[in-house]
Amino acid sequence: MGKVCEADRNIVQDVTAWLDRRRLAANVRIERKPIAQLRGWTIDPASGNLGHQSGKFFQIAGIEVKTNFGGVGHWTQPIIFQREVGLIGFLSKRIGGVLHLLVQAKMEPGNINLVQLSPTVQATRSNFTQVHGGERPRYLDYFLNCRLEDTTVDQLQSEQGSKFFRKRNRNMIVQVPDDAEVPIHEDFIWLALDQIRSCLGVPNLVNMDARSVLSGVDLSGSQHRGYPGPTAFHDEVSRSALPDARDGLMDFSSVDRWFAGMKAHYHLNVNPIDLKDVEDWIVDGESVHHVSGRFFSVIGVGVSASSREVLQWDQPLIESAKGGIACFLCRKFGGVLHFLVQARVEAGAVDGVELGPTLQYTPANYTGPSISHPPFADAVRRLRPGQFRYDSLQSEEGGRFYHDQNRYVIAEADVDDIQEIPENYCWLTMRQIKDILRFNNCFNVEARSLVACVESIR
Amino acid sequence: MGKVCEADRNIVQDVTAWLDRRRLAANVRIERKPIAQLRGWTIDPASGNLGHQSGKFFQIAGIEVKTNFGGVGHWTQPIIFQREVGLIGFLSKRIGGVLHLLVQAKMEPGNINLVQLSPTVQATRSNFTQVHGGERPRYLDYFLNCRLEDTTVDQLQSEQGSKFFRKRNRNMIVQVPDDAEVPIHEDFIWLALDQIRSCLGVPNLVNMDARSVLSGVDLSGSQHRGYPGPTAFHDEVSRSALPDARDGLMDFSSVDRWFAGMKAHYHLNVNPIDLKDVEDWIVDGESVHHVSGRFFSVIGVGVSASSREVLQWDQPLIESAKGGIACFLCRKFGGVLHFLVQARVEAGAVDGVELGPTLQYTPANYTGPSISHPPFADAVRRLRPGQFRYDSLQSEEGGRFYHDQNRYVIAEADVDDIQEIPENYCWLTMRQIKDILRFNNCFNVEARSLVACVESIR
Repeated sequence: MGKVCEADRNIVQDVTAWLDRRRLAANVRIERKPIAQLRGWTIDPASGNLGHQSGKFFQIAGIEVKTNFGGVGHWTQPIIFQREVGLIGFLSKRIGGVLHLLVQAKMEPGNINLVQLSPTVQATRSNFTQVHGGERPRYLDYFLNCRLEDTTVDQLQSEQGSKFFRKRNRNMIVQVPDDAEVPIHEDFIWLALDQIRSCLGVPNLVNMDARSVLSGVDLSGSQHRGYPGPTAFHDEVSRSALPDARDGLMDFSSVDRWFAGMKAHYHLNVNPIDLKDVEDWIVDGESVHHVSGRFFSVIGVGVSASSREVLQWDQPLIESAKGGIACFLCRKFGGVLHFLVQARVEAGAVDGVELGPTLQYTPANYTGPSISHPPFADAVRRLRPGQFRYDSLQSEEGGRFYHDQNRYVIAEADVDDIQEIPENYCWLTMRQIKDILRFNNCFNVEARSLVACVESIR
Repeated sequence: MGKVCEADRNIVQDVTAWLDRRRLAANVRIERKPIAQLRGWTIDPASGNLGHQSGKFFQIAGIEVKTNFGGVGHWTQPIIFQREVGLIGFLSKRIGGVLHLLVQAKMEPGNINLVQLSPTVQATRSNFTQVHGGERPRYLDYFLNCRLEDTTVDQLQSEQGSKFFRKRNRNMIVQVPDDAEVPIHEDFIWLALDQIRSCLGVPNLVNMDARSVLSGVDLSGSQHRGYPGPTAFHDEVSRSALPDARDGLMDFSSVDRWFAGMKAHYHLNVNPIDLKDVEDWIVDGESVHHVSGRFFSVIGVGVSASSREVLQWDQPLIESAKGGIACFLCRKFGGVLHFLVQARVEAGAVDGVELGPTLQYTPANYTGPSISHPPFADAVRRLRPGQFRYDSLQSEEGGRFYHDQNRYVIAEADVDDIQEIPENYCWLTMRQIKDILRFNNCFNVEARSLVACVESIR
């Protein structure tokens, strides 16, 4: 994972201690509950769908999927429907000339450690309009009323396409003037961008939404251009993000032609269906789960908290199969670092195909003698310790996922590790990734998380 | 419309004469028919939807629309459902060092002049698989079997969002080696890119699909850089397409933040419904039409042709209100030409919001005392003759639209013409337009047509 310098170690310790204090202050209890006993939630007798009485928040229903991507052409599955676009945004400010972001110690019931660093605001329209009768999210008006020239990031980006039906969040960074007086609530602190990146070096401190927004920060390598960083790999990443690297192994215009070709090649036909019509999944009062026990289950939790807008609530959460991995393999071409991305179909993706990591998979879902594992699963398993540049558990969104942590890996491939790449894979420079990522729904959330991790490497 | 040089006049005459010969050879008859009498098509008794017996081609059904864009928040309407992605592509080749495209004299039943210049291939999957028992489209294999390095354009782009439900075509240009022997059928000729652009100077010669693909051609101004063109405006357009113009009145990264903000701001909720449930529209045996007679009607035609894959067929077509206009206003900022684009919601758009022309509207649909006309309708009506740089009728797709021609206008605005622009409008350089257009579903088909027209101006 590279060397951790003294400053990094200190900030991580400080942030960890602060999160511990916020966790204590929050005084939260999470208890598992059968889904049939979740207050405010009902299983509709006709459809079998699990939803909130208000009709807001989200709903667990089903989809029928047909695709020519991957080994399975037709299936049905439960999925989360949440049509409204969420807002996740950092307030930013230059303090002493250095870019700082206002981070929140945010409790989410699914987080393995309850409280993680999150963006300043993480809200759905249901939050804005206070459906559940709680407080209006703090700092929200900075985002709702901002002018174009105050935003440095504004992107509509997807969440997990295998578990959300076309869900998107508006990812934002809004800057306030250097001399703006921003009242700071006790659950918030200003951290420098590099300090947040240091926190990405350890497991489960920086939440998924924060990683997603961070991947949209684009300094075009300008911060690094003049001087060498602490490690050679850090310098390689910076170089790969320079404007010069817009044309890499492929020139930039080939990349989008390749992407269009992938979208034309892979069909995805998805129809919403009732949860009761999903095959091989069992809905009982306890949970929604697959007959094999694989993939994921929908479970219930009850939350009692003092830090949250509402002090008590119940909700369903998704509990996924453990042991997932998201990995970027990278190597140099022409002296410039390239990352191997995959064009992949995910059932809930807004436009069917998005670009993902080299490998994104959960081995536990691939059981049975005739199941073939995805490309590069072997190559990643055979990586030697010296090839790892980043290797850490990070959490998926704790508002929807229960104790869901995946292993995020960035590793330099040997030339021998990768002989030939399938047609839905492509080597991209960091500049190319950044220039494509800014357009909505090009990179999936796992790839965006990895981009944030890559940029955190010292 | 600028000056027409001698070479332009000659090529337009030659192409017109060739199209006349192909029209004669095709010997086509189109007769209007009641929709209830279209052979092979049925109105489903339960849903009222109009579809082909094979289940292929396309279907006329309905949608219910809710949006916060524009003056009307909720409506239902008929719309064309055609889920499969069509392929429209030019074969290209350098002849004598000059880029040529293989154009087709293509008969479409809705064309006002029956035969227009089209891409080499214009086909749906139903054509590929010969559902209607006709011949396989010529030259198709060049496109289905091409390698990435043979494509110079490959984009998924939308069609009319008010009349198609999420319809997209794959827009392609595939090049063959200079010495490739391509057998040329009598309905096809090689034309130089500039010759095709000359044809865009007169009405209804270059069909909509051809204009759409042409808008994707991106020579980055390189062809023009060294020497002045025939008119000053032509040079301004070329300069506005140079890499230097990637940052214009707005820098490039602000443009996509603005676009993301528009997508977040405007909601669009569209649900497919049965045609019988569409309100204020009448489905009788003759046609589908609005009680007011406005907007559009679905009519029927019978076709007998000798040039087409099938000699005889019937089909529905959309007949729209006449007198539509699509206009780009442009003006210089900092010495560089900018075009005023509008972020607009169209009910059938894949991602709700696309970028369109400054003005895209059909005055006949805006009747009644309380109806307010769209922004810039007045500014465009007040344009003086000296401000027009392009002004020509061009046809919409004759395979779906009956005698549908709109006025395409490019005009230089006076500073006084435009005082303030609403927040969903934005001034872009041609470089910015080109760099965004390459990503799917950013620019609508009317705007893409105008981009092709802009580049045709001498």
